[in-house]
Amino acid sequence: MSQTLHIAKNLASRYPWVAKPFLVSAPMRVMSGPALAVAVSGAGGLGFIGPGLKTQDTLADLQEASSLISKSNLLSTAFSTISDSADRPLPIGIGFQLWNDDVEVAAKAVKEFKPCAAWLFAPRDGQKDLDSWSLEIRTASPQTQIWIQIGTLAEARELIRSSELPDVIVVQGAEAGGHGRARDSLGLMSLLPEVADAIEGTQIPLFAAGGIADGRGVAAALSLGASGAVMGTRFLAASEARISRGYQREVVRADDAAVSTVRTLLYNHLRGTFGWPEEYSPRTIINKSYLEQQEGVSFEELKKRHDESQKAGDHGWGPEGRLATYAGTSIGLIHEVKDAATIVRDVREGTAKRIAALGD
Amino acid sequence: MSQTLHIAKNLASRYPWVAKPFLVSAPMRVMSGPALAVAVSGAGGLGFIGPGLKTQDTLADLQEASSLISKSNLLSTAFSTISDSADRPLPIGIGFQLWNDDVEVAAKAVKEFKPCAAWLFAPRDGQKDLDSWSLEIRTASPQTQIWIQIGTLAEARELIRSSELPDVIVVQGAEAGGHGRARDSLGLMSLLPEVADAIEGTQIPLFAAGGIADGRGVAAALSLGASGAVMGTRFLAASEARISRGYQREVVRADDAAVSTVRTLLYNHLRGTFGWPEEYSPRTIINKSYLEQQEGVSFEELKKRHDESQKAGDHGWGPEGRLATYAGTSIGLIHEVKDAATIVRDVREGTAKRIAALGD
Repeated sequence: MSQTLHIAKNLASRYPWVAKPFLVSAPMRVMSGPALAVAVSGAGGLGFIGPGLKTQDTLADLQEASSLISKSNLLSTAFSTISDSADRPLPIGIGFQLWNDDVEVAAKAVKEFKPCAAWLFAPRDGQKDLDSWSLEIRTASPQTQIWIQIGTLAEARELIRSSELPDVIVVQGAEAGGHGRARDSLGLMSLLPEVADAIEGTQIPLFAAGGIADGRGVAAALSLGASGAVMGTRFLAASEARISRGYQREVVRADDAAVSTVRTLLYNHLRGTFGWPEEYSPRTIINKSYLEQQEGVSFEELKKRHDESQKAGDHGWGPEGRLATYAGTSIGLIHEVKDAATIVRDVREGTAKRIAALGD
Repeated sequence: MSQTLHIAKNLASRYPWVAKPFLVSAPMRVMSGPALAVAVSGAGGLGFIGPGLKTQDTLADLQEASSLISKSNLLSTAFSTISDSADRPLPIGIGFQLWNDDVEVAAKAVKEFKPCAAWLFAPRDGQKDLDSWSLEIRTASPQTQIWIQIGTLAEARELIRSSELPDVIVVQGAEAGGHGRARDSLGLMSLLPEVADAIEGTQIPLFAAGGIADGRGVAAALSLGASGAVMGTRFLAASEARISRGYQREVVRADDAAVSTVRTLLYNHLRGTFGWPEEYSPRTIINKSYLEQQEGVSFEELKKRHDESQKAGDHGWGPEGRLATYAGTSIGLIHEVKDAATIVRDVREGTAKRIAALGD
């Protein structure tokens, strides 16, 4: 337990405003914007801004987050222990998709705004890219901690042999929505403890991601050896998410993810997104595009119908829709849109209740 | 919480010798024999005997378990609250594969030996078969509680609409070894809480199965809403398991289940097992038979090589082997063979430690 206590103490000193349990909103591309990240951090969690359509967008997002934070006084209270306000990092994180983001622009953004954490994901060239990004980000902003997301035991083993050790490892289970491991994913129930055993002794905290949407999942993640829990899909149904209403409505409506979601590259391709490293494939809620592909409709025809559907606005999502609806297996646990602070507080209270019940 | 307490109280009265947390050894076909089941129950868990090659074998297994139990005095201590010893059920359970087992022989066995629980799994005709089996077993032995294993939300919803409500629902996640849902399985992290919500108000306890091998997994299962945890693969590495040494050695050796296991019907077919309902497919550790199938070797040739491999005894398993090695995703958490009582005690202590740490 001394390792657990050491890790908890270290996290508390690096993220002093974060309450227990340590709750994180995932850096979902575009959808996790400044308003969501700041609201989550403001409620005692850690909010991440997701990658933008291009890395340059990250500068604008960090600028906006910075100004939201100044207005809210979150900056001074979050890092009040740092006497010189110029040295205080931003109490939000920023995410990068390594294969698609520009490291120089990223370093410039991080240097200018000093987010407290940078979340690195999906390198084109594995550990080599993770190492060079970690080095660039740390050089640009020593206050910025490096969070690295992995989805396999093999990645964990390689990561802890690196000279650029991350500050936090996020373990993404097969349950996760959006992009995750295409063929070698595994449920958190086994993956998390196996990774925990593999990195034992490194003192690096593990965060669990995938399939978690309430206090039950958070308590389970902590049981399995995580120091905190990351939620993505739950925050797609936050009022601050940068998401179309039709998409959000579908996240609330759908359930039974075993049959209503699938990992497929189809929607990437329909949206014109190509080039993801082949290790990854996104989980999405199934709609007409996928069903008709299964029936044998040609890509050209699906693309035509998809693009037509885009003009339908919010009606482009849902069982009769055709647009990408990336989401995780927790969709059946999400029944309403709430503001992010309420989500953080509800999950925090739910976790405490669950842990208290376990102790009885 | 009152529902949780009610369920816990009810379980304690039906299984009075079982300590907390409620740990169960799964009814693995043939491999969960009388010695394993009695050892688990003797250590304060609930041991299940698995289905036999044919239902008739169940009679012999129950006979043997009954005699082991008499010798150990477990019978009288387990159900000491029941004054007439003739009314005392056996403090072990028995499992049936509905599509393959004979309900009349099963009912006869249950009537003669009164196991405290019958675990029903894999009906050919869904809820209809579950209902008729439940009725037959209850008629044959009113002391025998009905445990039903499901793997999907849809099954849970159908189950609680039945007039033959089960006494316990076992929720099997995608992580499980051996036969589970072929195409619509889901990780326990999301599946268990979603099923818990779907059956809320029924007062039926949920048990979690799949990917659990130590106190971390058990604490996680309880967090997600389970009243107890079932372990299969962990007990394949029990000294009492009815398993070849080569198979057992492979369970201990293998890790990283995301890449070292797969769901495939190949090994069923190599063993001459046909006829499983199409909803199911077994998870197995990958060896040469599967790899060569992927390379395009014909079934006839694979079958020839497989049958040859059978003559190699314990060398038929392992990375160079060709024999079926059904196992779950927890293989990376299992590092040694222990006797069943030690497994039960270690997992119990591990769970208590983990829960205590959560409370800090």
